[in-house]
Amino acid sequence: MFKVDLNCDLGESFGRYKLSEQQEILKYVTSANIACGFHAGDPSVMRETVHLAIKNGVKIGAHPGLPDLNGFGRREMNITPQEAYDMVVYQMGALQGFLSTCNETMQHVKPHGALYNMSAKDAKLAEAIAQAVYDISPSLVLFGLAGSELTKAGEKIGLRTAHEVFADRTYQSDGTLTSRSQSDALITDQEQSVSQVVKMVTEGKVTSQQQTEVPLKADTVCIHGDGEHALAFAKYIKETLENNKIVVSSII
Amino acid sequence: MFKVDLNCDLGESFGRYKLSEQQEILKYVTSANIACGFHAGDPSVMRETVHLAIKNGVKIGAHPGLPDLNGFGRREMNITPQEAYDMVVYQMGALQGFLSTCNETMQHVKPHGALYNMSAKDAKLAEAIAQAVYDISPSLVLFGLAGSELTKAGEKIGLRTAHEVFADRTYQSDGTLTSRSQSDALITDQEQSVSQVVKMVTEGKVTSQQQTEVPLKADTVCIHGDGEHALAFAKYIKETLENNKIVVSSII
Amino acid sequence: MFKVDLNCDLGESFGRYKLSEQQEILKYVTSANIACGFHAGDPSVMRETVHLAIKNGVKIGAHPGLPDLNGFGRREMNITPQEAYDMVVYQMGALQGFLSTCNETMQHVKPHGALYNMSAKDAKLAEAIAQAVYDISPSLVLFGLAGSELTKAGEKIGLRTAHEVFADRTYQSDGTLTSRSQSDALITDQEQSVSQVVKMVTEGKVTSQQQTEVPLKADTVCIHGDGEHALAFAKYIKETLENNKIVVSSII
Amino acid sequence: MFKVDLNCDLGESFGRYKLSEQQEILKYVTSANIACGFHAGDPSVMRETVHLAIKNGVKIGAHPGLPDLNGFGRREMNITPQEAYDMVVYQMGALQGFLSTCNETMQHVKPHGALYNMSAKDAKLAEAIAQAVYDISPSLVLFGLAGSELTKAGEKIGLRTAHEVFADRTYQSDGTLTSRSQSDALITDQEQSVSQVVKMVTEGKVTSQQQTEVPLKADTVCIHGDGEHALAFAKYIKETLENNKIVVSSII
Repeated sequence: MFKVDLNCDLGESFGRYKLSEQQEILKYVTSANIACGFHAGDPSVMRETVHLAIKNGVKIGAHPGLPDLNGFGRREMNITPQEAYDMVVYQMGALQGFLSTCNETMQHVKPHGALYNMSAKDAKLAEAIAQAVYDISPSLVLFGLAGSELTKAGEKIGLRTAHEVFADRTYQSDGTLTSRSQSDALITDQEQSVSQVVKMVTEGKVTSQQQTEVPLKADTVCIHGDGEHALAFAKYIKETLENNKIVVSSII
Repeated sequence: MFKVDLNCDLGESFGRYKLSEQQEILKYVTSANIACGFHAGDPSVMRETVHLAIKNGVKIGAHPGLPDLNGFGRREMNITPQEAYDMVVYQMGALQGFLSTCNETMQHVKPHGALYNMSAKDAKLAEAIAQAVYDISPSLVLFGLAGSELTKAGEKIGLRTAHEVFADRTYQSDGTLTSRSQSDALITDQEQSVSQVVKMVTEGKVTSQQQTEVPLKADTVCIHGDGEHALAFAKYIKETLENNKIVVSSII
Repeated sequence: MFKVDLNCDLGESFGRYKLSEQQEILKYVTSANIACGFHAGDPSVMRETVHLAIKNGVKIGAHPGLPDLNGFGRREMNITPQEAYDMVVYQMGALQGFLSTCNETMQHVKPHGALYNMSAKDAKLAEAIAQAVYDISPSLVLFGLAGSELTKAGEKIGLRTAHEVFADRTYQSDGTLTSRSQSDALITDQEQSVSQVVKMVTEGKVTSQQQTEVPLKADTVCIHGDGEHALAFAKYIKETLENNKIVVSSII
Repeated sequence: MFKVDLNCDLGESFGRYKLSEQQEILKYVTSANIACGFHAGDPSVMRETVHLAIKNGVKIGAHPGLPDLNGFGRREMNITPQEAYDMVVYQMGALQGFLSTCNETMQHVKPHGALYNMSAKDAKLAEAIAQAVYDISPSLVLFGLAGSELTKAGEKIGLRTAHEVFADRTYQSDGTLTSRSQSDALITDQEQSVSQVVKMVTEGKVTSQQQTEVPLKADTVCIHGDGEHALAFAKYIKETLENNKIVVSSII
C-alpha cells in the first residue's frame, strides 16, 4: 500500500493584508505549514489558522522563515547556523503557544522560502535547524526537499523526516529541481503533474529533464494554496492519487 | 514566617544593542522576566538569557510587551482584548520554545511597560491576558500591580497571582502608585525604600503620601537591572530583607 | 464657480501583499495620498505609485502614519508631539526622495488613520504635524478633517489647508463625524452621498443627523480606492459634481 | 598640498538603545554618515544627529543600509538592483527631510555594512546605487571602498566620488582589504595605522601584506565612533595628519 501526504503553506495573511482562501484548501490537504510571523503571518492570523486546521482535521506544522516580511522570506540572508537555530526555536515556540491553548501538538516543521532553499544546500544551516527541531521535541517530523542536506541532517540527528516533492516542477538528473530560470522548470499540464507524483510515490523515482530515471523518496507533496487553479488542482491530485490506490494521509 | 520574591526584567538587549549587565543582577533576584521580542529582546538574546537564568537558579517568566521596539513598549496602543490575547500567547510560546530546549518550564508571566499599565486599569484587557496565560497553562503565576485589574482577573479565572510592589515608588491612599508626573513619585533614599518594602511584606500595608495606612499585598518586588546603583541596591535590599527574617525566594 | 478636489489613499501594498487596483482610480481622483512605509507601503511600492500618479497627472501628497504595519496605522498610540514631528518629517522626506528622482514636488500632506484622528482632536499633536510640514516647505498644503485641530494648526502657522469632507459619512450638529459605533454613521445610498457633497461644496454646509444645518468648508473629498463599488462610485461622483458645474481639480 | 576627509558613522542609536558618544567624535571628523532607520537609527535620533553635526560644522551624508535592524545591516541579503535603488532613494529622502527642516543639503552617500560590501563587488548593485544617488542629485558625492565597483559606477554615471581607505585594516596586493577571517587583517598599532594613512594620502599607495606597493586613491578615511580608544585615535590621526601638512577637510 502506498501513502503520501499533501502539505500546503497557510496563515500567510498579515494584518489588513489577506492572502489566499484557506478554508477551501483545507478540505484537500493533510498537513498545514503555518507561517510564524517572520516572513508572513501575525499572532491573530496564527490563532485563526490553527483553529481552522484543527476544525478540518489537518495536521499542523511550523513554517519558520527569515525575518524579512517585505521580501516574504524569499531573499537569502547570510545568517549563522546559531541564528538559524534561534529563529527556528522562537517561531516554533510561538506557534506551539497557539496549539497549547487548544491542547494540540505540532506534527512537523518545514522551513519557508529562502530558509528552505539555503538549508537544502548548506549542511551547517541544515544541522542547526534539525537540532532546533530535535531540541524542542525528538518526536517532530522535519519536512525538507527530497534528498536535501536538510533531510540528511534530520535523519542524522534521529528525527523522522518527510521528503518533499513537487508536482509542478521538473527535476534534473542529480535529483535537484530545475532552476526557475530555465524555461522548462515548470510543469503546467495537470495530468503530467499528477503522473509525475504517482510515479514518485509508487515507483520511488522521477524522470529527469535528461530522460534519466532518478531515485527519489516522496513522502509529502507541496500543494499551492493560492493562484487561480490552486483549489481545482488540489482536488484533482487528491482524487487521482486515491484512484491510483494511494492513501492520502498525514505523516503521523 | 514572611516570604517575598525579587523580580527583574532581563533579556532586553537587541542585536548589536546591549542593555544592562545581566550576569550580576541574577545573583540577587529570584524571578526573571524575559523580554520576548516585541518591545525588546531577539531570539539569540532570549536563548542566552534563558541559559543564564537557569545557570543561576532563577525562575523564569515571560515578559510580553506591545509590538513597539522603537518605543520600548512604553507607548500605550489602542489594542483590542483579542489582540492582547494573541500577542501574549505568541510571546509566551516563543519564550517557552527556548525553555523547552532546556527541558524547563515557565514560572510566571508579567506584562511589560504600557501593556502592564493598561492591564492594571482596563478590566477587559486584563481578562484577555489572564485568559491567555490560563489557556497556555493553569499552573502559571500571573504577576501584576498589587491590587490591579490584572491580579483581579487572574484570581477570577483561577490563576495563582503575585502582587507586585515597588521599592522606589510612593503610593496614594487608594493604593495606586503616585504618578511619575508628581515630584514626590520616587523614593531616592535607599533605607526608606527598603523600609517601605519590609513594612509591606510584614504588615501588609504601606504609608501613603496622604499619611494613611493602605492595605497592600506584597508577593514580589520589582528590582531594576540597569542604572548606576541597580546592583548595589539589589544586594542591599536582599540582605536587609533577610536580616529582617524575610525569606527571599521565588513564587513557586 | 465652485471647485473641489477628490483625494484617494494609494500605495498601500507591501511586498507580496497587494491592495486595491490603483490604475483605475487614478482616472477619477485629482490628489493621491501615498503611504510612506510606516503603516503601509514599501520603497518599491512608493516608486511605482509615484510614477503612476505622475503619468495620470494626479497631484501627490505624503500620507504619513503611525509605525504600526500590523495594525495598518489604525490603532491610536500615545506618542509625543516631538515623536509625531519626527515621524512626519521622516516619511515626507522618504516620499520626496522618489519625487525628486522624477523632478517633482509634493502638493500636500495628509496624516493617515489613527494619526489623522488623533491630530483632529489633539491640538499639541496637530501643531507638531503642522510644524513638520511647514519646516519641510511652507508652500505645502495640509489636508485635515474639516474644522479640526489639524486644519486650525495649519492655518495658525501659515500653511494653506484643505478641509476634507466625507461622502459616505453622516455628521453631528457640532460638525464632527458620527461615530462608526452608531448605526447611522454610514451613508450607503450613492445619490444621498453625492447630494451631501454637492451641498457641502456649493452651500458650505451639511445637514446633521439632528437635522440642523452645520457650516462646513469642503475643499477635498475622500474617495476610497478599494472595495467592490469604489471605482463605480468614484466615476459617479466625479460626473455628478461636473454636471452640477463644480470643477473637479487638485488644490494647487 | 595634500588633503583628506575623515568620516564617521553616526546616529546609530535606536529608541532606548544608545550607541557611542557622538558629541566628542564630531570635533575630529569632517564628514558624518548618518544611519537612516533601516539598519540603525530612528526619526528622533536622525533629527538629533543632524542638528549636532550642523552645530559642529561637519558635512552630512546618508548612510543607507539593508532592512535588518536585528543584524545591524551586516548580514548580506540577496536583493535585486531595483530593490537596492528603491531602498537607497527612500533612506536618502528620509534623511534629506531632516536636513530640509534646517535648510541644509547633503554632501554625500555612503552605503552601510553588507550593502557597502556587496556594492564594492557587485557591479549591478553598484550601478543601481549610483543611479539612485544621481537621480536624487547629480551634485552629491558617492563614498565607496577605494577602487571598488561602487566608486567605478559612480564615476561612470558622472558623480563625484570619494575613495575610502581604512587606517586599521591591512591590504592585499590586488588592493582589497585583507579578510577579517585572516589573523593579520587588523592594524592595532596606532602609529602604524596613521603612517599607512599618511602614505596613502601623500604617495597614493599602500604597502600590501605581500610587501608590494599598491596604488590607491585616498580621499576619505573611515574613523570609528565607538570603542574604547575611538576618541583618542580620532584626535591622534587628525593631529598627525595636520603635522604632516595634510589638510583635513570635508570633500566639498
